[in-house]
Amino acid sequence: MNNFVETKMKNRLPEFIRGYGQVKPYCGPFETKPTAQKYGVKMSASKPGDVKLISSVREALEKVEIKDGMTISFHHHLRNGDYILNRVMDEIADMGVRNISICASSLTNAHEPLITHIEKGVVTGLHTSGLRGAIGKAQAERNILGKPVVFRTHGGRARAIEAGEVKIDVAFIAAPACDEMGNMNGAEGKSAFGAMGYPLVDAQYAEKVVAITDNLQPFPLHRVSIPMNLIDHVVVVDSIGDPDLIASGATRVTKNPTDLLIAKNAAEALIASGYIKENFAFQAGSGGASLAVCKFLRAYMEENEITGSFAAGGVTGYLVDLLQDGLFKALLDTQTFDAKAADSIKRNPNHIEMSASMYANPHNKSCSAHQLDVMVLSATEIDENFNINSLTGSTGRIMGALGGAPDTAAGAKLTVVVAPTMRKRIPIVVEKVTNIVTPGDTIDILVTERGISVNPNRKDIQEKLDAAGIETMSIRSLREHVENFTGKPEQIAYSDDIVGVIEYRDGTVMDVIYKTM
Amino acid sequence: MNNFVETKMKNRLPEFIRGYGQVKPYCGPFETKPTAQKYGVKMSASKPGDVKLISSVREALEKVEIKDGMTISFHHHLRNGDYILNRVMDEIADMGVRNISICASSLTNAHEPLITHIEKGVVTGLHTSGLRGAIGKAQAERNILGKPVVFRTHGGRARAIEAGEVKIDVAFIAAPACDEMGNMNGAEGKSAFGAMGYPLVDAQYAEKVVAITDNLQPFPLHRVSIPMNLIDHVVVVDSIGDPDLIASGATRVTKNPTDLLIAKNAAEALIASGYIKENFAFQAGSGGASLAVCKFLRAYMEENEITGSFAAGGVTGYLVDLLQDGLFKALLDTQTFDAKAADSIKRNPNHIEMSASMYANPHNKSCSAHQLDVMVLSATEIDENFNINSLTGSTGRIMGALGGAPDTAAGAKLTVVVAPTMRKRIPIVVEKVTNIVTPGDTIDILVTERGISVNPNRKDIQEKLDAAGIETMSIRSLREHVENFTGKPEQIAYSDDIVGVIEYRDGTVMDVIYKTM
Repeated sequence: MNNFVETKMKNRLPEFIRGYGQVKPYCGPFETKPTAQKYGVKMSASKPGDVKLISSVREALEKVEIKDGMTISFHHHLRNGDYILNRVMDEIADMGVRNISICASSLTNAHEPLITHIEKGVVTGLHTSGLRGAIGKAQAERNILGKPVVFRTHGGRARAIEAGEVKIDVAFIAAPACDEMGNMNGAEGKSAFGAMGYPLVDAQYAEKVVAITDNLQPFPLHRVSIPMNLIDHVVVVDSIGDPDLIASGATRVTKNPTDLLIAKNAAEALIASGYIKENFAFQAGSGGASLAVCKFLRAYMEENEITGSFAAGGVTGYLVDLLQDGLFKALLDTQTFDAKAADSIKRNPNHIEMSASMYANPHNKSCSAHQLDVMVLSATEIDENFNINSLTGSTGRIMGALGGAPDTAAGAKLTVVVAPTMRKRIPIVVEKVTNIVTPGDTIDILVTERGISVNPNRKDIQEKLDAAGIETMSIRSLREHVENFTGKPEQIAYSDDIVGVIEYRDGTVMDVIYKTM
Repeated sequence: MNNFVETKMKNRLPEFIRGYGQVKPYCGPFETKPTAQKYGVKMSASKPGDVKLISSVREALEKVEIKDGMTISFHHHLRNGDYILNRVMDEIADMGVRNISICASSLTNAHEPLITHIEKGVVTGLHTSGLRGAIGKAQAERNILGKPVVFRTHGGRARAIEAGEVKIDVAFIAAPACDEMGNMNGAEGKSAFGAMGYPLVDAQYAEKVVAITDNLQPFPLHRVSIPMNLIDHVVVVDSIGDPDLIASGATRVTKNPTDLLIAKNAAEALIASGYIKENFAFQAGSGGASLAVCKFLRAYMEENEITGSFAAGGVTGYLVDLLQDGLFKALLDTQTFDAKAADSIKRNPNHIEMSASMYANPHNKSCSAHQLDVMVLSATEIDENFNINSLTGSTGRIMGALGGAPDTAAGAKLTVVVAPTMRKRIPIVVEKVTNIVTPGDTIDILVTERGISVNPNRKDIQEKLDAAGIETMSIRSLREHVENFTGKPEQIAYSDDIVGVIEYRDGTVMDVIYKTM
């Protein structure tokens, strides 16, 4: 029999999880301090005449001596357009190597061929920020991995790698521009995706690092995001991906009238809160309503001649407009979400690339997430304790991601969640979220199309909204109101099998995902 | 009784040196491979609202809990204009702290107040690339430190820090531009010095990092050479240094007719060697004749429409002209030597900043030193085995530096030494150098005003020079010829006391410096 522990958010977790290990339960956003040293990779040696350029992914795998049981890493800057993960994994499978753990910054629908590799035992471990589509379904319903997927935030991944909790044997880095010694950037070339925030960490902490490029440039590359002293091999391929598939629906401003109403309400609440003032720092997650908030804030900023300090996050063309039009002085960018933003980072010195560690790692000496005044998040569920779910659906299926939400919610002075109260008659505001991703103790306001709720621990904000004449209601009333339309959601039937562990950014466990029955 | 070991260059070293440790003798430029892991600093934690800005150097020292026995680091990008090392050391002395080891990228005449701190026991360890003036004299004649100074090359310092052979407790970084969270660069502000090559390493491997700036900029600084996630504290002072004192005589092209003759001879030898061709990579050390070689090469390149790939090193205004005029496609810069070059790195994207590790560390996955075709070095002595001394004078006094000479000599396909045969009747070409800094097995040609000698192990170059009708002579004949004018140099009388250890870039020992009698 397993014993159980309880997190600060009152959810019960097993003390030990097979395939994961001992559980340290979440105990507050800044309670867990690191005690260890950063990981140090084995030192290398180079000499004149060393050749890094090799002709195929297969040869790269042979050079790095890929073998059973290794952990390898990938980034998802090319999102749905990524060709590299599948290509490397197909080659590894073809070589007969088994028992590989993948540490990806995230996984997208493009990576569904992984299912076959998992079923055949080529892949037996997954670390990621998100999981979607057929892989998410297969893991939630069938536990195809036979052990839990470890979900980490963008900051938590950087932390875990720096701490050596995830030891990467080989990092594969898709590089839109690279020279023959491995100096690279993400901003130039036919497959340009912009900032290289995730692999900036991998390159420093992986034992071997393979750059894969479709744009070999003369040495020395002039714009260096990751320097050659960290790179072992350079492989040239025809194409690393399809940059047209980087931007997804999630990165465009919505035209949906409900989302626009929510965004308008959110902007009003933000303005009333007093945080939208000269030199404020702002981030909005991807997702329709979340981005639409920018649109309404912009009008207010122009009218009141407010200039923000920086906007951050996954950077879209919409944020680029705000920079170019002088509404923000800088963009801090760890992951670029569309072609317009990728072009901006190349040309505009005020559009600044940052590593995932500088973005959101809680266990270094600063991160931009902790410098935010305002964060706007979307959610697939929010409960009466303001806990947010952005990973699993109400059916228990794995279909989303942690992203930077827990990082920025903890860091921002004011975190606002924008969400409709229901989607297709499924309630979004619920008594208890299917899984906790971002803890309610880091969420301040929920804005929906039917009402606004303020976290009771933020009396200061409640007073500001009251003073501005903005109507609010308790989140419980809001939930009950929604249930009048949707009815009480059905309880999902789960087995005892744990198919996912949701780590908080500091390495504690926030929640686990059980296999659906 | 101590036992002795012998290096590949046949100099005898004690097996063990008090105040230094066990000696691993030099055994060839690429024979010593690392086996350990890189050092990892203790992890930190940050949270929203953290304040890094503090009001004085004293408060910074209190915050980092400076104490007896610590190792602290400094960079010398401000060269003779640096105010920071003295200011920090005066404060440490004032606090009554003792037994501090200083790991400086180099020390200049500006740092002579160190003598008092050494004599009082505040400073009891020195790691540096160079030592000059009164400190060099006091250590060579009196061993004021009571143990050897450890001399390292620029690449060797980066290596030793990454390897954890030197563990830095606190790094102090003079920052010409810095924001309140510690994002910094060296290119902007009244004390701009250009590239931040040395502290780029310190910031990653020091337990605590203090930025000291005279130009506090709004957060976020737009040009980030060292990111905030590595910085603990930011101190604002009136002035970090006098940038007018960065450029010294060593960084201007000579007008001395002997030096110009040597440079002209060297350029002819270089051209005859066949290495001056399309896309060649080039570096010249500081020093009159060495820089003057560029002038003659430039004429040849223009005439023959040759464009080089990159020029590297300490970067001067002269190299900037070559870049701007299209003679080289890029500059790789770890340390900027004058105001014109500092301005260039700010404005020209083809003028690329690199860390000392990317420049010259032999124990990572590449360095620019290993990508060089041609290196031109100056020397204070060269002997019949082509060994170079650039640290000690013929009197045994410590008066120079290792710099990047051993790094680039090992890396370049062709290394040419330019030196006059004598200075003030003191022979430069000698039977045996006072101390070996750069081993003769990495030197290919010596060019003087009285003759050219090719290292016998480079028969290919000898043939090229013969074919071009360039007269050469054996280095032994050249030495004997010089002795006709100067007479045999007097033997220096040494004691048994070792006052300096000269490490090769890979951490082996190349030579030791004995106290003069």
